[in-house]
Amino acid sequence: MPLKTNDPAKKTWLPVPANSDFPIQNIPFGVFLTRDDIITIGTRIGDYAIDLGALHQLGYFNGIPLTDDIFLQDTLNDFISDGKKTWRLVRNRISEIFDLNNTALQGNDDHKNIVLFTLDEIEMQLPVHIGDYTDFYSSKEHATNVGSMFRDPDNALLPNWLHMPVGYHGRSSSIVPSGTAIRRPKGQTLPKGADVPIFGPSKLVDFELEMAFITTDANVLGEPLAIEDAENYIFGMVLFNDWSARDIQKWEYVPLGPFLSKSFASSVSPWIVTMDALEPFRVNSPEQNPKPLPYLIHNGKRGIDINLEASITTESGMETVVSRTNFKYMYWSMAQQLTHHTVNGCKVNSGDMMASGTISGPSPDSYGSMLELTWRGEKPLTLEDGSTRKFIEDNDTVTIKGYCKKENVRIGFGEVTTKLLPIFEPKKK
Amino acid sequence: MPLKTNDPAKKTWLPVPANSDFPIQNIPFGVFLTRDDIITIGTRIGDYAIDLGALHQLGYFNGIPLTDDIFLQDTLNDFISDGKKTWRLVRNRISEIFDLNNTALQGNDDHKNIVLFTLDEIEMQLPVHIGDYTDFYSSKEHATNVGSMFRDPDNALLPNWLHMPVGYHGRSSSIVPSGTAIRRPKGQTLPKGADVPIFGPSKLVDFELEMAFITTDANVLGEPLAIEDAENYIFGMVLFNDWSARDIQKWEYVPLGPFLSKSFASSVSPWIVTMDALEPFRVNSPEQNPKPLPYLIHNGKRGIDINLEASITTESGMETVVSRTNFKYMYWSMAQQLTHHTVNGCKVNSGDMMASGTISGPSPDSYGSMLELTWRGEKPLTLEDGSTRKFIEDNDTVTIKGYCKKENVRIGFGEVTTKLLPIFEPKKK
Repeated sequence: MPLKTNDPAKKTWLPVPANSDFPIQNIPFGVFLTRDDIITIGTRIGDYAIDLGALHQLGYFNGIPLTDDIFLQDTLNDFISDGKKTWRLVRNRISEIFDLNNTALQGNDDHKNIVLFTLDEIEMQLPVHIGDYTDFYSSKEHATNVGSMFRDPDNALLPNWLHMPVGYHGRSSSIVPSGTAIRRPKGQTLPKGADVPIFGPSKLVDFELEMAFITTDANVLGEPLAIEDAENYIFGMVLFNDWSARDIQKWEYVPLGPFLSKSFASSVSPWIVTMDALEPFRVNSPEQNPKPLPYLIHNGKRGIDINLEASITTESGMETVVSRTNFKYMYWSMAQQLTHHTVNGCKVNSGDMMASGTISGPSPDSYGSMLELTWRGEKPLTLEDGSTRKFIEDNDTVTIKGYCKKENVRIGFGEVTTKLLPIFEPKKK
Repeated sequence: MPLKTNDPAKKTWLPVPANSDFPIQNIPFGVFLTRDDIITIGTRIGDYAIDLGALHQLGYFNGIPLTDDIFLQDTLNDFISDGKKTWRLVRNRISEIFDLNNTALQGNDDHKNIVLFTLDEIEMQLPVHIGDYTDFYSSKEHATNVGSMFRDPDNALLPNWLHMPVGYHGRSSSIVPSGTAIRRPKGQTLPKGADVPIFGPSKLVDFELEMAFITTDANVLGEPLAIEDAENYIFGMVLFNDWSARDIQKWEYVPLGPFLSKSFASSVSPWIVTMDALEPFRVNSPEQNPKPLPYLIHNGKRGIDINLEASITTESGMETVVSRTNFKYMYWSMAQQLTHHTVNGCKVNSGDMMASGTISGPSPDSYGSMLELTWRGEKPLTLEDGSTRKFIEDNDTVTIKGYCKKENVRIGFGEVTTKLLPIFEPKKK
C-alpha cells in the first residue's frame, strides 16, 4: 500500500517554488541553529525550515509516543533510535499539519511565528552524531575504472569484488556539513621514479560523488541482521562528498587501505531524506552475476532512481557541471551493504553512516571523480570560465546535488557544497 | 623534575598486596557500576576501587577547577577534555588523600564507607566513549613476520613501512571491556585452490596483543599537531586485544584493508594508566633507519618498558602463557603515530583510541599473535592441559596482562580477558 505522505496530489499551504527539492511529499529531517541561537530538530517544506521542537511543545504531536525533548536535541540520534514506526507517525502528522486543507497551524499566526523560519534565519548542522562511518566501493563502473588505471584493464576488478560489497572503516571526526570550508591536506607522497617519499601539500585533491545512508540501532554485538530485515534499519539518505588525496592514497594504502588520504574531510548534505520519501522511486538494481552467496540475496526493487550531479565553481563564480550520474547504477544495494556489515556480528548503532563509494555511470561524463573524469589527469576538463582542471584547485567549490522525479513530484536532497582552502599555515610562535 | 606522585618511597594507608598492579604510584582512571547500580568514575589502589564522584561531592577535590558532575558520568571523555594540567592536579590530590600520613579520609569511617568499594562490589565499564578508533601497524617484527608469510621473505616490509606509521581506521562500536564474551564471526572465505568463496564460521580466529592510547581534544579540523606537542594530548594507555579472523581478512582485504575480519570485536582493559604514571619507565625506541621525514622526528626517550604477556585458558581451566613481549619493541612511537594521524588535518577528539598494532618481539616466543606463534598454523602450540592450538578455539579465554617495574615500584594495567563463544545461532521464528 503506497504511503499517504507520498500522494502526488497532496498540496501544502506553504509556498513551494517550482522545481523545489522539498515539496510536502519530502519531509526530510535535519538539525539547525535558529535566529535565537537555539539548536533544534526540524524539517523543511519549500524554502521554510520548520522547528519540530517548537511544534511538539505546542502540542501538534499529541498522541504520538515521543519524549518531551526528543526534538530539542543537537542530533537526530535519539529520534532515529525510536524506530521506523515512530518515524512514520511523525512524518504522517507533519504531512497533515501542512496539508492545504488543514487550518490548525495555517490559521494561527502566533504559532507560525514560532515554528517557521526562512532559510537565512537558520544555520544547518550535522544531522547526526556519527558513531561509526563506513565507506563502501559498490559502483562496478568506478571499481572497474580504478582497477583499469592502477592495475590491469583486463582484470580490473579484484577477485572479491563481485562476491561482496567491499568497504572499509572511515573517520567520523572529519565529517562536516555542507558549507564548511576544508583545507588542502599535507602528507607523504612518492614522486614518480623516486624510492624515498617527500612531504608537502597533496597535489591531487579530488572529490568523490557519493551518497550515504544513516542507520538506526540494528543489532547487538555478535548477532547478524538478516537481509530481509535490513531495510527496516535504514532511516534515510544524504549526499556525500568523500574528499580524497590521490597522491597520498597511492603511497599509503598498502596493505591496510586508505587512511590519511581520506580522513582530512568528508562533506554531507544536511537534510536526511527518509527511505519512505524515496519509496516511489525504487527501480531494479543491476543484475548480479555471479549470484551472491545466499546471505546477500534479496528480491524486489532495491535500487533508487536518483539523478546526481557534481559541479566545480571557480573563484570567478562560474559553475561548471562536470558529472551527471545516477544512484541506480549501484551494483550492491544498501540492504546488501548493511547485511554484509553485520554478518560478522559487528554492532550497528543509531546515527552510523554508510557511504556508497564513488557513483560512476557507464559513460565518461557520468564518472563520479576527477580521477576518472580526467583519466588520471591525462584529459583535463575545460570549465565554463576557460580554465582547465585535472584535479581540484585551491579556492574551488565542489557542489553535489541530487533529486528523484516521477509524476511531477520531485524529491531532492538539496546540496552539499564545499570550498577547498589552501593548506593551513601555522602562525609563527 | 620527577612527579611527586611517582616517588617510589610513597606509601598508602590502604592495603596493597605484594605484586599488585595498582600501588599508590599508579592511580589509573576507569568507570564502574557500583553496588547501588550507579555509574561513576573512579580510581584503584590495591584491591579497592575508589568512587571519585563521591570523593568530589564530599569536598576532597576543593580548590581544583572541576565541574560538580565531572566524575558522575558514564565516560571519562569530559574529564579528559579538561586537559593535562587538570589530570595532574587530580592525581596529585588522590595521591595526597591516600598517603599513609594523611588522616582526613583515613580517619573518617563514614566517608570511607561511601567512597571505597571492594572489587566484587563493582563492574568495570568501557572507560571512554570511543569516537574514533585507529589501529596502527608499528611493530617491525610483526610487519616483517606477516610480510614474510604472505608476500616475500626477502622484501617483507612494503616500501612505505619504514617511512610512516602505517595505520587504518577501525570500528569503534565493537570495542568491549575486559570480561565481555564475544562470538566467533561468520563471513566469506576463499578455500585453498577455489575461485569462488564460501560462507560460514571463521576457522582462523586469532588474538593480537596490542596496547592503545587515549587522546584528549588535540586540534581543529585542518590543523596538524606538531610532534613536539603531541604527547601533551595523550591521556593514558590500556591493553588491547585486536581480535582477527585471518581467513576472512585474507579474502576481503584488497584493496581497501581489513574490514569484517576485525570489526566483530576488540577488547580493552578497563583502567587507563596515565602517561604520568608511566613516565619513570621511558626508554629509547629502536633506532629508525632511514631517518623519518622531519615532521616525524623527535628526541628523547619515546619508548616505554612494559612487560606484556598473552595466555590461553581452555575449558579445563588451565592457563598457558603463549607469548611474552614488551612495548619497548615498537618501532614507531605514540607521538609519531598521533602526529602522523593529524598531519592531514584530521580531527582528534577526547576519547579517541589509537592501538599500536600487534606487538611482536625478536624471538619466536615473543610474537603477539597465533598467526606468528604457530607460523600460519604450521607449528601448533601445546598447552598446559596437553591440547594443541593453531588458532583460538570456541570457549577458549584469551588474557593479556602488562606491567612496568623499576626500583621496586610495579605499575600495571590489570588485564583484558575475553572468552570466545561459538557462532551466534538465531532462534527459529
